[in-house]
Amino acid sequence: MNRRPHRRDPEGHRQAILDAARTSFGERGFARATVREIAARAGVTHGLVLRQFGSKEQLFLAAVPGHRELDQVIAGDPETLPDRVAHAYVARMEANAAVDPLVVLLRSIASDQQAAAKLYSAMEAGSIRAYREVIDGPDAAARVAMLGAQLIGVTVNRYIARTGPLAEMPAPALAEHLARVLRHILFDRAG
Amino acid sequence: MNRRPHRRDPEGHRQAILDAARTSFGERGFARATVREIAARAGVTHGLVLRQFGSKEQLFLAAVPGHRELDQVIAGDPETLPDRVAHAYVARMEANAAVDPLVVLLRSIASDQQAAAKLYSAMEAGSIRAYREVIDGPDAAARVAMLGAQLIGVTVNRYIARTGPLAEMPAPALAEHLARVLRHILFDRAG
Repeated sequence: MNRRPHRRDPEGHRQAILDAARTSFGERGFARATVREIAARAGVTHGLVLRQFGSKEQLFLAAVPGHRELDQVIAGDPETLPDRVAHAYVARMEANAAVDPLVVLLRSIASDQQAAAKLYSAMEAGSIRAYREVIDGPDAAARVAMLGAQLIGVTVNRYIARTGPLAEMPAPALAEHLARVLRHILFDRAG
Repeated sequence: MNRRPHRRDPEGHRQAILDAARTSFGERGFARATVREIAARAGVTHGLVLRQFGSKEQLFLAAVPGHRELDQVIAGDPETLPDRVAHAYVARMEANAAVDPLVVLLRSIASDQQAAAKLYSAMEAGSIRAYREVIDGPDAAARVAMLGAQLIGVTVNRYIARTGPLAEMPAPALAEHLARVLRHILFDRAG
């Protein structure tokens, strides 16, 4: 992925920056990777990265898998939303937990709590915005935040600690369980 | 707490070890604190600490607040169990999140994933054992693990990242919300 795009090629730049960001975040973690280093790796200026992506948090969210697909997962029948979210989450994590934004976030807590907080805030704000398209009611934001908390907790259990019932059950069983829990959290009623 | 107990005073030894453990885990985190250092601080041998507590994980669980009280929270009417767990969790975290085992666990993920996994495993096994006294059914262990995941996620959100709806709501509102979610998770029915 070492292409050095021509300066008049904005889409090439964008791709080069995203490739560089994935490499840097993967190698050095969220807290230690810098926009400057990502820009250098992509062969563009620091200023161009910030103009295109706004901040390190936004660049991270644009570069990592999962977050970009959230809008697509959410679009559709609200009735089956918990199933779509649970299955998309499990599929994404089973495929590549190591570079997943939730895992990167959790790993960054110990090294730089402030960076982790900013990243969490950006992820959560994006999620709440996306869910609010289909979930309403006075405590919709709190319910979406509780859903996010459940996914964080399952991530710690199955993909980081890798121990106990949630780590041992087959992926389809986890998706079923999780869909039921997320249905309760989002709609506050039995599955 | 610098008492050096007489060698024939097992209860004094136990207290000295627990005091030393709290200090070491608080100062150095779970991964970096060692049984040897805790023993030296307590004025006892390494072997005595291991004979009394079994392992660093077990010593941690014995020394930190919260975990020891779980049996007391769980004992009682199963119908109001989710409320008791939610309120005890929120009260404990609001009082002193920094030394809470869930926070120490999450902070230890980045520095030593294997240590974090062992600690998670010990905490989860203890919790499942305690809950199994009052929760039954074929997937009781999975439901208790999902409950643990929810608490982990709320901890990340409110007490570590400290941002978003779950961090902003007053503690009593969080306890109410959480009780409803935990009721769903444990009993798989509407609150």
